[in-house]
Amino acid sequence: MIALESLTPVSFAPFGDVVDTGATAPREVNQGFARRFDGVANVDVLTQGGFVNVGLFTANPRPNPIAIKLMERHPLGSQMFYPLQDQQWIVVVCADPRDTGSYRGFKATGRQGVNYARNVWHHPLLVLKNDSRFIVVDREGPGQNLEEVSLEKPLTLGAL
Amino acid sequence: MIALESLTPVSFAPFGDVVDTGATAPREVNQGFARRFDGVANVDVLTQGGFVNVGLFTANPRPNPIAIKLMERHPLGSQMFYPLQDQQWIVVVCADPRDTGSYRGFKATGRQGVNYARNVWHHPLLVLKNDSRFIVVDREGPGQNLEEVSLEKPLTLGAL
Repeated sequence: MIALESLTPVSFAPFGDVVDTGATAPREVNQGFARRFDGVANVDVLTQGGFVNVGLFTANPRPNPIAIKLMERHPLGSQMFYPLQDQQWIVVVCADPRDTGSYRGFKATGRQGVNYARNVWHHPLLVLKNDSRFIVVDREGPGQNLEEVSLEKPLTLGAL
Repeated sequence: MIALESLTPVSFAPFGDVVDTGATAPREVNQGFARRFDGVANVDVLTQGGFVNVGLFTANPRPNPIAIKLMERHPLGSQMFYPLQDQQWIVVVCADPRDTGSYRGFKATGRQGVNYARNVWHHPLLVLKNDSRFIVVDREGPGQNLEEVSLEKPLTLGAL
């Protein structure tokens, strides 16, 4: 059972960035009609001839209760997800997919994205509503950028 | 008077990319629980030691009717805006800020972003509701990446 915690920059620090407006001071721009919060994700995709990919995702929920059966990581690049509908979603990461005690689960708000650092094990996108849309910033380019591990015994997620 | 047209990849092609799911075929991922549309923006930020910046914007509307008084461009990098609330917004670009006839205005849906190509003249973010949130992918790094031109005579936008 993976308990779900709040997603904060401190709790998520071993795995990457929380993409939100909490950690940065805004700058007033556009003649006073906008504020911008910059540098909210450390995009790390250039290794081995990589380049930035921007993608749009549409995702559906897994059956409830959610079973964690497979983890993945990207050895060549960071991967950022940001929600487009202000709806809560779930982030599951671990230090080692074969070490049950290393799993962490986070409740992300609809105004929080995450940027998985390179090589960080994470579960594929977990959403709570149909047709949940996300914008993604990750890596395109040569090389094998996906590793997957299937768990012998699925783990379950704690209550929201 | 700048008439407002629909935003399509063809109409916007001289200025950059329309960031939406219309032009790309999706790929099924995440064990069938998601579809991804990749390569929706050509991120061009690496010149002269530049790197990718991801930012979050919060913008407010200008007084109505909107007066176009200033245009800007970024000689060192592309700049992408994608809306986070599924609300219509407005894009104004031109080939030459001093050539009134070169201005184009576009109605973007709340599921369309734009990625201004490097050096493309554009108006700062134009939104229709308070606290309109956007995610931005642009350039950070050394060098002067902003040029602005003030118009002697403001232009007005046509009806939505």
